[in-house]
Amino acid sequence: MLVDGKAMRTMWPTGDGRVRIIDQTKLPHRFETLDLTSLDAAETAIRDMLVRGAPLIGATAAYGVALALQADASDSSLDQACRVLAATRPTAINLRWALDRCRLVLSAIEPADRVATAWRLAAEICDEDVAINRAIGQHGLALIERARRGDRPVNILTHCNAGWLATVDIGTATAPIYAAHDAGIPVHVWVDETRPRNQGASLTAWELGRHGVPHSVIADNTGGHLMQHGMVDLCIVGTDRTTARGDVANKIGTYLKALAAFDNGVPFYVALPSPTIDWTLNDGVKEIPIEQRSGTEVTHLTGATEDGGIATIRVTPEGSNAVNYGFDVTPARLITGLITENGVAAASREGLLSLFPERRAA
Amino acid sequence: MLVDGKAMRTMWPTGDGRVRIIDQTKLPHRFETLDLTSLDAAETAIRDMLVRGAPLIGATAAYGVALALQADASDSSLDQACRVLAATRPTAINLRWALDRCRLVLSAIEPADRVATAWRLAAEICDEDVAINRAIGQHGLALIERARRGDRPVNILTHCNAGWLATVDIGTATAPIYAAHDAGIPVHVWVDETRPRNQGASLTAWELGRHGVPHSVIADNTGGHLMQHGMVDLCIVGTDRTTARGDVANKIGTYLKALAAFDNGVPFYVALPSPTIDWTLNDGVKEIPIEQRSGTEVTHLTGATEDGGIATIRVTPEGSNAVNYGFDVTPARLITGLITENGVAAASREGLLSLFPERRAA
Repeated sequence: MLVDGKAMRTMWPTGDGRVRIIDQTKLPHRFETLDLTSLDAAETAIRDMLVRGAPLIGATAAYGVALALQADASDSSLDQACRVLAATRPTAINLRWALDRCRLVLSAIEPADRVATAWRLAAEICDEDVAINRAIGQHGLALIERARRGDRPVNILTHCNAGWLATVDIGTATAPIYAAHDAGIPVHVWVDETRPRNQGASLTAWELGRHGVPHSVIADNTGGHLMQHGMVDLCIVGTDRTTARGDVANKIGTYLKALAAFDNGVPFYVALPSPTIDWTLNDGVKEIPIEQRSGTEVTHLTGATEDGGIATIRVTPEGSNAVNYGFDVTPARLITGLITENGVAAASREGLLSLFPERRAA
Repeated sequence: MLVDGKAMRTMWPTGDGRVRIIDQTKLPHRFETLDLTSLDAAETAIRDMLVRGAPLIGATAAYGVALALQADASDSSLDQACRVLAATRPTAINLRWALDRCRLVLSAIEPADRVATAWRLAAEICDEDVAINRAIGQHGLALIERARRGDRPVNILTHCNAGWLATVDIGTATAPIYAAHDAGIPVHVWVDETRPRNQGASLTAWELGRHGVPHSVIADNTGGHLMQHGMVDLCIVGTDRTTARGDVANKIGTYLKALAAFDNGVPFYVALPSPTIDWTLNDGVKEIPIEQRSGTEVTHLTGATEDGGIATIRVTPEGSNAVNYGFDVTPARLITGLITENGVAAASREGLLSLFPERRAA
């Protein structure tokens, strides 16, 4: 991904025992990087959402282990690092997966060898994320090419940020978009602002803008109207958890866009790295617990003032209650296809098994 | 409607040649009234949206004519008042209807009699609005009673503000809610915040709160999830324009809620005074032009700061485009019923004609 012409990942080791991250809490108004030098710093970065997005959290945790071992390579230090980091975002699947992998490899070797191995392992986890996203991008690129009509830009609607900033590079839902843009296919992205946390308006709009991808921010209410009037060629969203039959839990509001796409015959795709598939679940609406978050995310907003400052305002009346669910579940019947690193398949048990045949035995 | 225990309309003549309005641009953070004393003041109040909502705009215009004639009761003054007021919000149907009615009555009588008649006519227009809304409330009340299950509150979802503040009193979509609440039926209202102008979060939440109706503000993305999980018993929304076959143009995002209601078997009602029916139109999606508004309504928000001030912030990155459609069209096939002052009917040509049989001949 380019940031104003310069190729960049969302995190990288500096080579002298530090890890540089982008402080995403400052986006889109300020682009600031920050160096992590300790387990404490990594823990804070994840907990306070300076880094967010399942793949990026996993990668940051792996580097957090390396930073901890750099200070103390003992068994107890390794244990403590994994415990502390796992507690930062209890529901993040990638986080636990990355930490389990680190612990398995590192506990099996001598403390003296652990630091170098931990750094290498974190780099591997990052490179694997990038490779998965690049493959998703190539599979999705074919879908965008198919949606092309003459010279006009392909209009793609996305929700939330399943982008570069949620991963180490490229993103998941954005991967096909960047691949198409970089291949010279004209694209235009409708960016749902994604209330209440505005990840679309703040993060997706920012990264698309920095990479030079044409886009328009819209209120979350707008997509249905656009689809009724032929202004959306396809939708691509990410997912936090996908069930074995292809139901998808993603940022609240995704279900409403899938309904509108279905009603208007607009293809609706979900991009997902295979680790987000939860093979133990089937009926997403019934089985996936949905996180309820603080109502202040609805009642209060933060942004840039005209004089360049940052301010927080309340938009609701004092005394009005607010209720805030973080995710909703889109049933597989509304999804045109799932874009994974292994290819595109129908959102169904058979579709997923065709891409991941090793699961048939399981 | 009660405002903190005191019965109040949204506008009223003070009896000494002035008209008192609520400055709705200050809500929900400040409740301020303002006296209109001239045509100029009435024009500004409508143009700058100190008053908004089709019925309230019509009533304000009628009082604007009275204020103009109070200064000068001549034919040219009457003409000018109607012209100036009609230009304030060119697309508002009630505005033109109210002005045509004033002009017809007032141009037929002597200038000397015009002032008293103009004040009486404006009061009539207000009283008729209240009577229509009260009838809508009673017809809708029966639907809420039917949705009641045991002792738990009836959960009603609404979008935007088709409330007390959009009318002279009671509101349209809120009329059944206030009727139920006042009749002792426990209700709880899910208030869509209604981006980008936040009329739900700022106006509907405020008026429900002042009247004492339990409610929760939610992001517009949330309704689908709530309906999937049985947390919405019925939806009631307003409409800006209804076609002869029952398609409904309402605030952007209404269509998405109607899709979710249909998908989950939740009744979806539209409350409408008959003047919003446009008998000349049929296919709303094809025939109703949708207003495109400034992108700054999406990119910028205004609210209360912690120190009691009012601030405007930008939530999007500089350089990101924003697109802002004001309304969308909900096809009749998704609507359970239309609640009018004449009763409840199916959203269809036959349904509407059964309530307004005089239109059969037309």
